Amino acid sequence: MNFVGAHVLSVSQFDRDAIEQVFTVADKMEPYAHRDRVTRVLEGAILGNMFFEPSTRTRVSFGCAFNLLGGEVRETTEIKTSSLAKGESFYDTARVLSGYSDVIVMRHQTEGSVQEFATASRVPVLNGGDGSNEHPSQALLDLYTIRKEMAAQGKDIDNLRIALIGDLRYGRAVHSLCRLLCLYRKVHFTLVSPPELSLPDSYVDEMRAGGHTVIESQDLAPGISHADIVYVTRTQEERFPSQEEAEKYKGLFRLNQSIYTQFCEPNTVIMHPLPRDSRGNANELDNDLNENPNLAIFRQTDNGVLVRMALFALILDVVHLVDKYARDVSWYTAKRF
Amino acid sequence: MNFVGAHVLSVSQFDRDAIEQVFTVADKMEPYAHRDRVTRVLEGAILGNMFFEPSTRTRVSFGCAFNLLGGEVRETTEIKTSSLAKGESFYDTARVLSGYSDVIVMRHQTEGSVQEFATASRVPVLNGGDGSNEHPSQALLDLYTIRKEMAAQGKDIDNLRIALIGDLRYGRAVHSLCRLLCLYRKVHFTLVSPPELSLPDSYVDEMRAGGHTVIESQDLAPGISHADIVYVTRTQEERFPSQEEAEKYKGLFRLNQSIYTQFCEPNTVIMHPLPRDSRGNANELDNDLNENPNLAIFRQTDNGVLVRMALFALILDVVHLVDKYARDVSWYTAKRF
Amino acid sequence: MNFVGAHVLSVSQFDRDAIEQVFTVADKMEPYAHRDRVTRVLEGAILGNMFFEPSTRTRVSFGCAFNLLGGEVRETTEIKTSSLAKGESFYDTARVLSGYSDVIVMRHQTEGSVQEFATASRVPVLNGGDGSNEHPSQALLDLYTIRKEMAAQGKDIDNLRIALIGDLRYGRAVHSLCRLLCLYRKVHFTLVSPPELSLPDSYVDEMRAGGHTVIESQDLAPGISHADIVYVTRTQEERFPSQEEAEKYKGLFRLNQSIYTQFCEPNTVIMHPLPRDSRGNANELDNDLNENPNLAIFRQTDNGVLVRMALFALILDVVHLVDKYARDVSWYTAKRF
Repeated sequence: MNFVGAHVLSVSQFDRDAIEQVFTVADKMEPYAHRDRVTRVLEGAILGNMFFEPSTRTRVSFGCAFNLLGGEVRETTEIKTSSLAKGESFYDTARVLSGYSDVIVMRHQTEGSVQEFATASRVPVLNGGDGSNEHPSQALLDLYTIRKEMAAQGKDIDNLRIALIGDLRYGRAVHSLCRLLCLYRKVHFTLVSPPELSLPDSYVDEMRAGGHTVIESQDLAPGISHADIVYVTRTQEERFPSQEEAEKYKGLFRLNQSIYTQFCEPNTVIMHPLPRDSRGNANELDNDLNENPNLAIFRQTDNGVLVRMALFALILDVVHLVDKYARDVSWYTAKRF
Repeated sequence: MNFVGAHVLSVSQFDRDAIEQVFTVADKMEPYAHRDRVTRVLEGAILGNMFFEPSTRTRVSFGCAFNLLGGEVRETTEIKTSSLAKGESFYDTARVLSGYSDVIVMRHQTEGSVQEFATASRVPVLNGGDGSNEHPSQALLDLYTIRKEMAAQGKDIDNLRIALIGDLRYGRAVHSLCRLLCLYRKVHFTLVSPPELSLPDSYVDEMRAGGHTVIESQDLAPGISHADIVYVTRTQEERFPSQEEAEKYKGLFRLNQSIYTQFCEPNTVIMHPLPRDSRGNANELDNDLNENPNLAIFRQTDNGVLVRMALFALILDVVHLVDKYARDVSWYTAKRF
Repeated sequence: MNFVGAHVLSVSQFDRDAIEQVFTVADKMEPYAHRDRVTRVLEGAILGNMFFEPSTRTRVSFGCAFNLLGGEVRETTEIKTSSLAKGESFYDTARVLSGYSDVIVMRHQTEGSVQEFATASRVPVLNGGDGSNEHPSQALLDLYTIRKEMAAQGKDIDNLRIALIGDLRYGRAVHSLCRLLCLYRKVHFTLVSPPELSLPDSYVDEMRAGGHTVIESQDLAPGISHADIVYVTRTQEERFPSQEEAEKYKGLFRLNQSIYTQFCEPNTVIMHPLPRDSRGNANELDNDLNENPNLAIFRQTDNGVLVRMALFALILDVVHLVDKYARDVSWYTAKRF
């Protein structure tokens, strides 16, 4: 895959080589994300960070990644303050906004909207999430985290045993991750969800067709008992037809330290696309796991910055220049990574 | 006109010389806006981009223009998150905010608000739009576009034939453009609108007094048939007393490729202040014109960045320094202009 | 107090030495805030400016202060666009966001929220206001202003005579300022408020225990007649149980030029934490004072930038480097300070 000037809209664009390319660059970004070094390679470049649906984490992560490469960020955070509210088409919005910046990240609640936008854009577009459809940078950071966590245990993504827990129907992070994992060999999937929120058949079929093992279950304990990764999700209430409908499924599967100790193998890594819902009626991942060193959820979000820096560097073709425009950091930096 | 340290509040501040000054600098900004070169001339300067009324295009365009000169942008996007909502006067807001930045762009729904704000501001203020009153940078970018498009055809603004279509009553872009065009010689205006949305008499009187020709019409076809520029506008529904009232006028005049081919002279340039309303009941400028090379609407928004860069450079007195702080761009840039 | 890497959550962290340290650095920041000089000492650093409650002044002031040191700002302005709205705990939000930036400023309407956030944050956190609890940078800028204004009159904070007027119950600025003033010697406080909005007893007790004089009054004229500083506040309507309740207290104490002339000593300095409510039914500080040279309210907000720059420079340990990364400003700067 040639990244230079490319849109990143879907995980289906990626093969193993392309993924490896992103991850190799992401590794190189560590000194910058960890504030040992500063690079100014994109000084003067502008990111259009266009979030037409609420988001803090993804929006700030993309913006921060661009800043860490030395670039500037112009941001939009709400649809009602945008021309889209005055009847403007995605085509027009894209033609206009792509005159303002060097690259665009876009999130919008409508499935397919970002693809439509990209078609008309004059600069590369990264999909920051389009409804329940795609969120490719999330899938890449999840996979990057799996690779890192497994490497620390001397393991690989091939032959991975992963348990996916919760709302597997509306969780776009899970969908995209499954698609990426299918690029590897003999992954063992355990899918734990209520029947109504099970992973859509198309994904299960694809996984089986690729030679992977898929076990579906409605029972948490056996599901997590032979896994390298336990990937827990929040009930995506904003995607449900009604709040009442969503409430029925909250809190059905809850992982906490005592269940972990009782059923998981030692060093089973816990992941979650975040935000986790810590309200009493949901609480899919208990706070008593916070001191568990296998809880990788904040390493995931840290990795997100690395992966997004890598995507920007590849698309804008500055990978080879990042170190050239670098210097040491001269301010206090917390030892936080 | 001495731009250094000046407010830009109204098109009535400009004479032909001042306009020429802005356009000459705007021409110089092209390599920077087109990402061939980067300049850091305003590195360390801060723009206060204060939008107390919804806007994506104008807000991002101003912010981007300032970034392209190397400066930083601090932004406010909504009145309800501002101190104005706690009963603060424009005077106080202006005194305070002008302590934070080197220059301010302000948009507010109240006519005259930006002028009031500027009186109390300690730094230069650019009017980013005050209700249905003024939006001078839009008028300047429109005129700059007309100049460029006409020059490409070997023509001039003097003796221009322009048709203005649609909501000429509430469209501040049209009002300001008319005022600027009056500075030139023998412009031929054709005004096409429903009687209730006709251009206010004061403008028509001024145009006629200046020796320009004005023809008023309610019929699209003859209106556009002898024009160098057809300038189409959206029904400014947010300025109407009610939504129902606005709906009555939507979609009355629609330009599409077939009408263009039938009635317009070859190379008639199509402009629109954007956003165009592409919803079925409005659709004043059809998408089937998108491949028409005379559709200049996205060149207009691109030109907006040039004109706003020019205004900042003139007001902050760095025109002569822009090239001194410049270097070539080292990242991938789409060929988008 | 060792500022390097420290959180700034409460004025109770400060002793006289720590305050003196901040103020000494704030004095050094003047050439940068006044745009005589530019420093790039924090070029590449990122501030997470997290405002989960409406604010223009404080938000822009912090962002501007960070920009003036050369750093970048990533911003969040509303709780409903944040993961907190999806049930995320402060702990998670803090773990995540502190992976994105070098330092965080946080405002949230819930008392104690910023402290809770800081506990989980991996980078230093500055309290930008947590409900009616604390707003330490406001108290520091108020005290810094008092010091400067008194110094200009050859006076000191010791033995200061200050009258506090208005809503002393909900005004967190007043609470924090009182606490800081208690660190000095023999301050003479006059508290003017309706009984229902009087300063909480805990503060009055602390003041008296520290050897300060406290006089409580419900009468404006005698209250302001022997004061070096008259500190007027707005009725904090957003903290009241209901709007009706708040309305009862608006406009009870109003200072204008004629009352000032009649009752205040010459050169009595007028302060206000801003925004002042200029609506007719409130108007606690009349606009006819705007030309009074003793009206220090805009010098206060200007000083806020200096104090916030000082806090950032101390926490990130770059005080000794600020001048090293400096150069003269090359653009037009209004003489506004």
